[in-house]
Amino acid sequence: MLTHSRLIALQCHLTGKKYSIDQPIGYAPDSQQPLVAIYDTRTPLSRDILKDRKHDMWRYKEMLPLMDDQNIITLGEGYTPILEAQKLAELLNIQHIIIKDEGNNPTGSFKARGMAMAVSKAKEWGISQFCVPTAGNAGSALAAYAAKAGARAHIFMPEQTPDVFRMDCQVMGARVTRVQGSIRDAGLEMTRSEGYPDWWDVSTLKEPFRLEGKKTMGYEIAEQLNWKLPDVIIYPTGGGTGLIGIWKAFHEMLELGWIQEIPTRMVAVQIEQCNPVVKAFKNGWDYNEPYDNPGITIANGLRVPKAFGDRLIMKAIYESKGTAIDVTESDILQGIQLTAEKEGLFLSPEGAAVVMASKKLKETGFITQKETVLLINTGSPYKYIENLTL
Amino acid sequence: MLTHSRLIALQCHLTGKKYSIDQPIGYAPDSQQPLVAIYDTRTPLSRDILKDRKHDMWRYKEMLPLMDDQNIITLGEGYTPILEAQKLAELLNIQHIIIKDEGNNPTGSFKARGMAMAVSKAKEWGISQFCVPTAGNAGSALAAYAAKAGARAHIFMPEQTPDVFRMDCQVMGARVTRVQGSIRDAGLEMTRSEGYPDWWDVSTLKEPFRLEGKKTMGYEIAEQLNWKLPDVIIYPTGGGTGLIGIWKAFHEMLELGWIQEIPTRMVAVQIEQCNPVVKAFKNGWDYNEPYDNPGITIANGLRVPKAFGDRLIMKAIYESKGTAIDVTESDILQGIQLTAEKEGLFLSPEGAAVVMASKKLKETGFITQKETVLLINTGSPYKYIENLTL
Repeated sequence: MLTHSRLIALQCHLTGKKYSIDQPIGYAPDSQQPLVAIYDTRTPLSRDILKDRKHDMWRYKEMLPLMDDQNIITLGEGYTPILEAQKLAELLNIQHIIIKDEGNNPTGSFKARGMAMAVSKAKEWGISQFCVPTAGNAGSALAAYAAKAGARAHIFMPEQTPDVFRMDCQVMGARVTRVQGSIRDAGLEMTRSEGYPDWWDVSTLKEPFRLEGKKTMGYEIAEQLNWKLPDVIIYPTGGGTGLIGIWKAFHEMLELGWIQEIPTRMVAVQIEQCNPVVKAFKNGWDYNEPYDNPGITIANGLRVPKAFGDRLIMKAIYESKGTAIDVTESDILQGIQLTAEKEGLFLSPEGAAVVMASKKLKETGFITQKETVLLINTGSPYKYIENLTL
Repeated sequence: MLTHSRLIALQCHLTGKKYSIDQPIGYAPDSQQPLVAIYDTRTPLSRDILKDRKHDMWRYKEMLPLMDDQNIITLGEGYTPILEAQKLAELLNIQHIIIKDEGNNPTGSFKARGMAMAVSKAKEWGISQFCVPTAGNAGSALAAYAAKAGARAHIFMPEQTPDVFRMDCQVMGARVTRVQGSIRDAGLEMTRSEGYPDWWDVSTLKEPFRLEGKKTMGYEIAEQLNWKLPDVIIYPTGGGTGLIGIWKAFHEMLELGWIQEIPTRMVAVQIEQCNPVVKAFKNGWDYNEPYDNPGITIANGLRVPKAFGDRLIMKAIYESKGTAIDVTESDILQGIQLTAEKEGLFLSPEGAAVVMASKKLKETGFITQKETVLLINTGSPYKYIENLTL
């Protein structure tokens, strides 16, 4: 059945040049920048379309790029809960803290959204071989959706990645290569592979549709909060697709008239030993410099020396009057402990970084007492056990 | 706010004797058998009540025991996806196989449902100390909901339980005791503890409300399948609460007129080295004999020598014209591999046991080609990594 997708073009976010949606294209060939999906938001579209739909990310199908819903490859991703964190809020002296728990996704993380979308759309384009460099969860997700689609996945991960991620990918039939260094080195190794020209590269923002999957978090946040957005959203930022995606979703909904305003400030959280976004924000840059020799961390997803979508990340932060902040390894451990004891939530290290960032931002005055703050927990902690001594 | 719960009494399933719902009671003091919650199903209740409700297990609140929804302790449990397993169905030559993926629950398993309910109702009763013996996931769930409720949890687990379960409980602030032997031994150790008289014992079916949480799986199966039940449900059976709960939910819905018939045959799956239900079924018994010296298994949740609700398990199997079947360790590994490669789903060992049971039951003719078979995957695999070499 047709999805009645409103997709009209792919556009280079920097030059504004438009590209056809009829054939596979990854990023803008001239500018070497990410492509962004553009939708028709002028033709009226009522929120009522959502009424009797299934509660997964495909309920927003008009604003997603897939044309035929027979191409949907799904494992039940999306519509994760938003939880009240009352005791944490009291402790931090913030009126209202809520946590969107992305750990309740297939393969245990928010990466499921992006990969479900990328693999489904690639299927629509007739693609059957994929590759990705990964800090862990993106690999797990690609392996799962590729298996479901009957496609082949080639996954490149840093040696430091916990072994469960390798197992997770291999059990799905994916080919895993471990690489010395960071996710950046894994990506370089991937592009040098013999088979690379035949693979569809789903590296973060090097194809336009993982972003479209991730943006469903933004639609859900609005719908679940009864179309009233929070004052602050705090997001752990490695590749940054989720942050960019949420910001994109908010603007699409504003154009559609689904929301009346966007009061939200977007915050990127990184780790001290790999903080290119924080450095750029401090210097007022609209791009990131690659971070040299990023330190080892228990928050594998945050060890990204430079995001391909760096300019889009900075744009979302500046436009929203947000900020960027980094935390330490001991902050992360403290965040895990605190949120577990107070809220019964065992966060991923990346999610714990966000909790401690909210604490610091309250102390600096960036967050005020009366605000509603939404924290994103990007994944389940159980794949990180190898990293933890608790 | 009042939930308008229809709960009227707790009843011993064996003697029929009724008990008040106004004060804490665990199991029937005379018969030493489980208590079952009884609801008013005569006063009409339309399915329309569900229309605009949140998609979690609390949407069925009239048929749950909580009186005031301020006592709800929630981490977003329930309304897990039901996935189409088309390639698995083709392989097994069964027309329609669907999988309810309970891994997408808080704390990574179906145990979240039962513990959310038990802890919430205990809160309503003013209880603030809990204890449980566990094969792993029940402990994780109790620890999480107790932490959220600001209550204390005392958890007893067999030494062989993967260490991640200990960590999961301790990070939430629970007290963990490891015990030599099986979950039965852990339970004995627990009842001999000095503090035991002061703790609320939420052992499987020794209090009546974990069952009520688990039964929401049955309500969801009906609602998600548009009120048409599957022909067969296959369930990995340790303590058996889920199987009993689903069967109970089906009958409540029949009484309410939400469904017109119950065509479903209920199947209990166990492991060869601990199969008291299978033995009882072969002998036509309505109870189980305790299994002596249960063997070690990667499916920790199935190492239950005798369920406290054994009679209720057997009743559901007999009434539904179901069956009981066991699988081997190598079956389980094969089931994990097969479902990962075909369906992109990394099952828990217990879930994998269910897949292989469906294969065997098709071969024996218990399942016929034209049927719709629903498999329950009870949890995420990531907590079992210590058990697996893949």
